[in-house]
Amino acid sequence: MIQGVKQQKWWGWGEEGKAYQHADKPKFAPFVKRIVGVDINQPRMSPPPFESLDVPPSRLSEELRAEFQAIIGNKFVQSDDETRVVHAFGKGVRDLVRVRRGELGRVPDVVLYPGTEEEVARIVDSAIAADAVVIPFGGGSNIVAALEAEPGETRQVVSVNMGRLNKVLEIDAESGLARIQAGVFGPDMEDQLKARGWTMGHHPDSFVWSTLGGWIATRSSGMQSDKYGDIADIVRGLRMVMPGQILNLRPLPSTSSGPSVREMVLGSEGRLGIITEAWVQVHRIPEVRELQAYFFPSYGDGLRACQQIVESDAAVMMARVSDPMETQYIMANGKKSGRVGSLMSKAISKVMEAKGWDLEGICMSFVGFEGSPNHVRYEKGLVNKIVKANQGMGVGSGPGTLYDQKKYDTPYIRDFMLDHGLVADVSETTTPWAYAESLHTKVQQAVQDALDSRGKRGVVFSHLSHSYHSGACQYFTFAVADDSEDCLDTYDVVKRAIQQTFVDHHGTVSHHHGVGEEHSPWMAEDISEAGVFIQRKLFEGIDPGSNLNPGKIIHEGRPGISSNSSDA
Amino acid sequence: MIQGVKQQKWWGWGEEGKAYQHADKPKFAPFVKRIVGVDINQPRMSPPPFESLDVPPSRLSEELRAEFQAIIGNKFVQSDDETRVVHAFGKGVRDLVRVRRGELGRVPDVVLYPGTEEEVARIVDSAIAADAVVIPFGGGSNIVAALEAEPGETRQVVSVNMGRLNKVLEIDAESGLARIQAGVFGPDMEDQLKARGWTMGHHPDSFVWSTLGGWIATRSSGMQSDKYGDIADIVRGLRMVMPGQILNLRPLPSTSSGPSVREMVLGSEGRLGIITEAWVQVHRIPEVRELQAYFFPSYGDGLRACQQIVESDAAVMMARVSDPMETQYIMANGKKSGRVGSLMSKAISKVMEAKGWDLEGICMSFVGFEGSPNHVRYEKGLVNKIVKANQGMGVGSGPGTLYDQKKYDTPYIRDFMLDHGLVADVSETTTPWAYAESLHTKVQQAVQDALDSRGKRGVVFSHLSHSYHSGACQYFTFAVADDSEDCLDTYDVVKRAIQQTFVDHHGTVSHHHGVGEEHSPWMAEDISEAGVFIQRKLFEGIDPGSNLNPGKIIHEGRPGISSNSSDA
Repeated sequence: MIQGVKQQKWWGWGEEGKAYQHADKPKFAPFVKRIVGVDINQPRMSPPPFESLDVPPSRLSEELRAEFQAIIGNKFVQSDDETRVVHAFGKGVRDLVRVRRGELGRVPDVVLYPGTEEEVARIVDSAIAADAVVIPFGGGSNIVAALEAEPGETRQVVSVNMGRLNKVLEIDAESGLARIQAGVFGPDMEDQLKARGWTMGHHPDSFVWSTLGGWIATRSSGMQSDKYGDIADIVRGLRMVMPGQILNLRPLPSTSSGPSVREMVLGSEGRLGIITEAWVQVHRIPEVRELQAYFFPSYGDGLRACQQIVESDAAVMMARVSDPMETQYIMANGKKSGRVGSLMSKAISKVMEAKGWDLEGICMSFVGFEGSPNHVRYEKGLVNKIVKANQGMGVGSGPGTLYDQKKYDTPYIRDFMLDHGLVADVSETTTPWAYAESLHTKVQQAVQDALDSRGKRGVVFSHLSHSYHSGACQYFTFAVADDSEDCLDTYDVVKRAIQQTFVDHHGTVSHHHGVGEEHSPWMAEDISEAGVFIQRKLFEGIDPGSNLNPGKIIHEGRPGISSNSSDA
Repeated sequence: MIQGVKQQKWWGWGEEGKAYQHADKPKFAPFVKRIVGVDINQPRMSPPPFESLDVPPSRLSEELRAEFQAIIGNKFVQSDDETRVVHAFGKGVRDLVRVRRGELGRVPDVVLYPGTEEEVARIVDSAIAADAVVIPFGGGSNIVAALEAEPGETRQVVSVNMGRLNKVLEIDAESGLARIQAGVFGPDMEDQLKARGWTMGHHPDSFVWSTLGGWIATRSSGMQSDKYGDIADIVRGLRMVMPGQILNLRPLPSTSSGPSVREMVLGSEGRLGIITEAWVQVHRIPEVRELQAYFFPSYGDGLRACQQIVESDAAVMMARVSDPMETQYIMANGKKSGRVGSLMSKAISKVMEAKGWDLEGICMSFVGFEGSPNHVRYEKGLVNKIVKANQGMGVGSGPGTLYDQKKYDTPYIRDFMLDHGLVADVSETTTPWAYAESLHTKVQQAVQDALDSRGKRGVVFSHLSHSYHSGACQYFTFAVADDSEDCLDTYDVVKRAIQQTFVDHHGTVSHHHGVGEEHSPWMAEDISEAGVFIQRKLFEGIDPGSNLNPGKIIHEGRPGISSNSSDA
């Protein structure tokens, strides 16, 4: 490990020593038992000791090592086993299962920690001169297999960890813009901004373990995107190291200078180069910030309310609604004496029953407000009317406060579940509003069919997470109860069913997790064969030797996971 | 002319018979005389008769003509001189001067009017098989030389007029999306939408004479973009005919499916193919629409107010402010008994004088509001506070009504001026807010220096036209008084000075007019050499034979106009 560069566990999400526990959440174990038949009070499987792994030796040539050492110094050229294994994968559940099993694939031969853009440029040029493969690495939280080398890669593989490039370089206070290095992690970046009175307002679930460069490279979107925009809106300029040259896009509010090069770098997942810094929109920290919670009698009511809120004269910071199963999951995760626990106090339950609500079908919603006290009052008034018109009821700001505290913890639950034989992950998509509810139904059915085909139990739930004028993102969490050797096959069948349902029913392959290798089989169905052709020509033009993170975004697919349909 | 397809005059903007006149605007002639020394009461020069032009014969081969006739029918294969000349140029002032002089350049050999996407696809494939050049044509209002073939083009040149593809095909009312054919003109499209209760809200200056496909191909932006977005925001999906295949991007609110192919088509100016239809965001026609007018004692005050309005809790539809010279121009264009004329009534002038304002320095501003009556009231309250805090004063909704009526008429004034030896055109850019005022000052100085270097009089004025979180677009109108044979040289010196000032001072080469050949010399300074490299690789990959509108966006520049600086 390099001082000052955070590194996740090799076998799971986040930092060593931090883990989910449910001792103070008495409803959780019964909930899991009821839904998927797994008893989480049984002893858990532990990850194997690192020493048990059979890590393939580094294939880095002495010549290339010496070149890298000359560029960045010996200390920042790392090829010990653990560093290499940490950089071999992202944190998708498929990654976790494989690494715990010691199925390490094509582990990078060296991990480099450049400290300047110039060093990044010299690394890229040296690597390409040696016909090596270059894979940029930010927080390592990718869940679409964008960080691993292709299994059959015979060339040297170089992972470039950007963590030392972690500074807010300047703030243009007049324009609301900040120039920030790409390797900075979310919390570090927001701390640096906050110290000067600013925020970027970008809070993806991965926030604690992801970086600005990673957000740009994958087209990330945060929980407050309804106000602050997706990363594609937030990033106004950037610099990227390409073979032999550096792209410099100055910060511009908007431009008509031909096909958008900025939008080609966004989502490029390392295939065009390494992003070193960006100019991003920043905002003054708002006077008031409130998360209000609401309940709706059905998911359809909640979806309609969210659409109406987004289309209304109110311009909220966030509007999300969980489906009934996710609502139950949230409630089951409430502490004994906590606010969410008390949410379903007898008093509230009685109100709902009096309204004739099916308590198994209720849906929890959060709406976020920011601005002056007067403006927040005004917007809450508009939202309350819409909530009422859609049969909803408000339950105050208590649950929102709790949501804010726990919003980044889900991956720890995922790892805990994996220890108990529950293989869980997430998939998300956007559709136009017209198809939001039907897509949700179809995904649920597809998952059930997939589980049935494997004779396994499992669950899928979702929330509407990001809204736009013409549609919304629905974020699905799914889990399969399979502690067998074939658990990844079961996972694949379910994951494939979900992705296929997305593209078959007006959805995109991914809203903000990117493509990587995991989603590449559906690209032609998402953007048509001609769209894939355009992306391929772009990649080939910039990287004729296929040295820049090859196989990502456009790929023939991996054996374990492929599209059901062959035509676009 | 093809029935149902609007066609502009060959020698000027818009329809035959419609022209600017100033008989009822008594202040205008004295204003022009005072500012640039031109007496518009003198007899005007008339365009020459069309018959006087020496139109080069069509070089279309009989084989290719027969193929095109087989695809779309004889009637829609036009190669008469006037049709070809109309399709030889856009409507930049350089175009008008050249066409009136009979300097016709490389006139297209044939103009095709396909009626279906399939016909477009067959045309493209036939043209490329014959190694011909294909140039898509919408309303013909382009002002950056994106519609003309390269002067030395030896291959056959095919202009594809998209005007028959002019239907709103479907409206997804649940999602606020409409599928619309690319060749539809602005008013026709809005009429079709309005009949069903919708609007797209996209109103560029060229609205009457431009098309959906043209807006997409040039990254257009309309007057109400603060609310409705640039065309890049409005277009959610599209179809484009490419050589041998059709790109189909389904309508998606947002996606992370790799580098954005949608954003590569936006601004592609015909270099990747021919856009045939698009899914665009549409909105219900708002209950209330109001344009309020304000005056500020200086341009700086107006700019600051607009930024504060855009950053405030209000979310206005439009916020613009004219600089002092443009304000005087607007006033001088007021009718004798009209509202703008009465604006500067003695009463208002007295108020301004009492405030100590320099009447030569005042700046007129329009702010647009839409929504429910209550919401418009609420936003007007917020805006009024900001206006006051920036020394401004409101003067009601009268001028805004007039602005709405006349907003598309400026190009007719431009043509009238040309008849009197005033060569006028427009250039626009965006910068971050921090550089907005200094850019304005520098452009004024650059224009004056350029005029001095030619010993000519002229004028430049501007308004802030589109606002974003991090900056704004300033839209400059400039005119040179030069009725000599060398008038285009004078124009070039001034135009070049403006563009160079843009890229030298944190601005982009163009905010919404695109690049064409006119702005291509500054592309490396705008998006860096590496950005140009990326665009070039994209174009080469899709169009290896350089058949698709070659020379646009990336080009070595034309002799008459080139960047002052050679490095990026």
